[in-house]
Amino acid sequence: MRKDPMPTLDREPTRRLFLWRSLTMGSAAVAAGSGFANGMGNPDNQPPNVPDWSRSLGEGVAVRAYGKPSEFEKNVIRRDVEWLTASRESSVSFTPLHALDGNITPNGLLFERHHSGIAEVDPADYRLMLHGLVDKPLLFTLDDIKRMPRVNRPYFCECAANSGMEWRGAQLDGCQYTHGMVHCVMYTGVTLKTLLDEAGLKTNAKWLLLEGGDAAAMTRSLPLQKALDDVLIAYRMNGEMLYPENGYPVRAVIPGWEANMWVKWLRRIEVGDQPWHHREETSKYTDLLENGKARQFTYVMDAKSVITCPSPQAPLKHNSGFTVLSGIAWSGRGKISRVDVSLDGGRNWRSARIDGPVWDKALVRFYYEFDWDGGELLIQSRAMDETGYVQPTKNELRKIRGVNSVYHNNGIQTWHVRKTGEVENVEVS
Amino acid sequence: MRKDPMPTLDREPTRRLFLWRSLTMGSAAVAAGSGFANGMGNPDNQPPNVPDWSRSLGEGVAVRAYGKPSEFEKNVIRRDVEWLTASRESSVSFTPLHALDGNITPNGLLFERHHSGIAEVDPADYRLMLHGLVDKPLLFTLDDIKRMPRVNRPYFCECAANSGMEWRGAQLDGCQYTHGMVHCVMYTGVTLKTLLDEAGLKTNAKWLLLEGGDAAAMTRSLPLQKALDDVLIAYRMNGEMLYPENGYPVRAVIPGWEANMWVKWLRRIEVGDQPWHHREETSKYTDLLENGKARQFTYVMDAKSVITCPSPQAPLKHNSGFTVLSGIAWSGRGKISRVDVSLDGGRNWRSARIDGPVWDKALVRFYYEFDWDGGELLIQSRAMDETGYVQPTKNELRKIRGVNSVYHNNGIQTWHVRKTGEVENVEVS
Repeated sequence: MRKDPMPTLDREPTRRLFLWRSLTMGSAAVAAGSGFANGMGNPDNQPPNVPDWSRSLGEGVAVRAYGKPSEFEKNVIRRDVEWLTASRESSVSFTPLHALDGNITPNGLLFERHHSGIAEVDPADYRLMLHGLVDKPLLFTLDDIKRMPRVNRPYFCECAANSGMEWRGAQLDGCQYTHGMVHCVMYTGVTLKTLLDEAGLKTNAKWLLLEGGDAAAMTRSLPLQKALDDVLIAYRMNGEMLYPENGYPVRAVIPGWEANMWVKWLRRIEVGDQPWHHREETSKYTDLLENGKARQFTYVMDAKSVITCPSPQAPLKHNSGFTVLSGIAWSGRGKISRVDVSLDGGRNWRSARIDGPVWDKALVRFYYEFDWDGGELLIQSRAMDETGYVQPTKNELRKIRGVNSVYHNNGIQTWHVRKTGEVENVEVS
Repeated sequence: MRKDPMPTLDREPTRRLFLWRSLTMGSAAVAAGSGFANGMGNPDNQPPNVPDWSRSLGEGVAVRAYGKPSEFEKNVIRRDVEWLTASRESSVSFTPLHALDGNITPNGLLFERHHSGIAEVDPADYRLMLHGLVDKPLLFTLDDIKRMPRVNRPYFCECAANSGMEWRGAQLDGCQYTHGMVHCVMYTGVTLKTLLDEAGLKTNAKWLLLEGGDAAAMTRSLPLQKALDDVLIAYRMNGEMLYPENGYPVRAVIPGWEANMWVKWLRRIEVGDQPWHHREETSKYTDLLENGKARQFTYVMDAKSVITCPSPQAPLKHNSGFTVLSGIAWSGRGKISRVDVSLDGGRNWRSARIDGPVWDKALVRFYYEFDWDGGELLIQSRAMDETGYVQPTKNELRKIRGVNSVYHNNGIQTWHVRKTGEVENVEVS
């Protein structure tokens, strides 16, 4: 169905505004002075009643000393897929992207990926060792790390295997599962450069090993150049200390690179002169090609986007008319410069409205407002970043990389919107 | 003790960096190759052991389908002060500013201020009425509101009574209590202008009444000009739906203005030609002066700042040497342009380092790194905003406004740091 490899753009801000004004709230409008009546499409729109919550005192302050969502939002949670992995200790739970908006992920809903479950670290016994090709090996307590100069940076964090099941065609029914291994929070921490400067690097230093304190002792090799560029040794997310499942008390933040390298419960940094070739960078987190060779050290998460609403878990509830399509985009190479949207499976594209802050290597939120005629749609989004890179189709990726890998699938996602408003994960050829 | 009304500045970035390098991690350094030993000030620094969390599988994914902080952070909670108010249903719980960093407040820790407790609203029964001097009265369901074009904006929200007890001198021992009625999150919502455009304003429309759905039916008058400028009808904070205590499902966001106007559980917006002079803008939320007259409609929260660490609840744990002082600043009139810090009760000032995003009408995070000689300190911060406004001393404010009010105290806060590292709330004259 998809024909045009290059975007064709058509901007109609004026028409969109008109559509909004003419197509929407007519359903809720009533004749002035005659009281409020029901509108089309809102059959249960009744005049304001005096509900229970307006009749009596509610719960007092600090009864919930730490807040939580309304009981009516109890379905907005991280979810795992039991058949996807052998155990829940080495598994993933997904962020409910379809039920969120904006570009900051709330702390309760950051996706999880563990290799030996959640290490529950006592901060008093926490230590971070820095050794190897350094002038002065160092051992830090958590208080040491908190005493240092620190910075605050918003970054996305995406698992290399996000969308990994989709290499072999449309598989999982909802953006929570197809794309929910990504989050974006404000991280606070010390730059790794500060620690390395303190230890002093030997002249032959070229690589670092990051090791986690969980029972898997998760290890990854990190090039020194990246370590000195923008890597953080972070201990806070959105202001408060990391949650246990996100690496409490200290994790690595490797901006723009695959989340497997963002080692949690970080206990050791070794400086060496070559990569270590440990399990997670040989057997795993490499991209096996058709010819039997594997791409290794494929760190950067390239530009990607997904429409979060409508999507299979967030169908349209109206029959036609003014519709807001919304989604997220991100790039491990810098800022998102543009997002395009197609309603017809990639034949025609229009530029989406990016709203809210646009940060380097962070999620951005986009919207596309249009007049839905009530017919079937094949909706797609396509991200572009400041390097000029354009998010490819899944088939363009498959031509080059085959379908052996479960990593680094940043192909364009298609949702099929039915006349009923229901949405399904599909592929277009 | 304070002498200079005007700032004297002294920037020394080079010296600061030197201080950091020379004064810090020496305490944790050890001779290369000889294993790790204890350092000064870190007597319990032991070589990495193999703690329990590295020996066994942790809890699996999605066991906590909605995340929460580590058990070791259980003291980082909202707290109320029982003697401060007559009941907990009309009271306040304070954000633990001393235990946070960055400029985004995590959703679990947003301060509360209720007038009849927390309304627990069923979103299916939620309605928002818009009526009065409009062409077309409207009644919105939550789905209607979610269907509209929306925007994402980070704003601070500060209670007019924040620091209110401090008008009569140093009262409360900790920035959680003196300044903890402020938060900053990313709000998502529809602009009020969108709703008003839809309804169509009569030519004599000049004021709006916002009414909450709690049993107090909290009401405030809002000038039309502000309503058309930047007010949001918001339903999300940091991406997820508002929590019940923050107005679930819909609240007003009045950027830069006192939080009492940010009506929660918003159920009604009436358009009129004059203010309503209801209780919360006559008996309360007005500033009673010495001459018996009261300032009314004092909406804007002027530039303000506070040092969050060290502070009474976050004492210094070391005896001397490299020290990071940290705090937050904000202004209801725009962006923060500079923050100065004094270590000697306002005699001498130096420019702080602002780190992280600087948004309009949002919290900014500042740091000041210095070499603490171990002696007593009188630490202060002073915010400046892009209009040129400089945060005043408390005494400067008292000269003009007296001490009858509990509102709009944005005076400079002083903390007394003792040689022991303990910190106390004090006043300097």
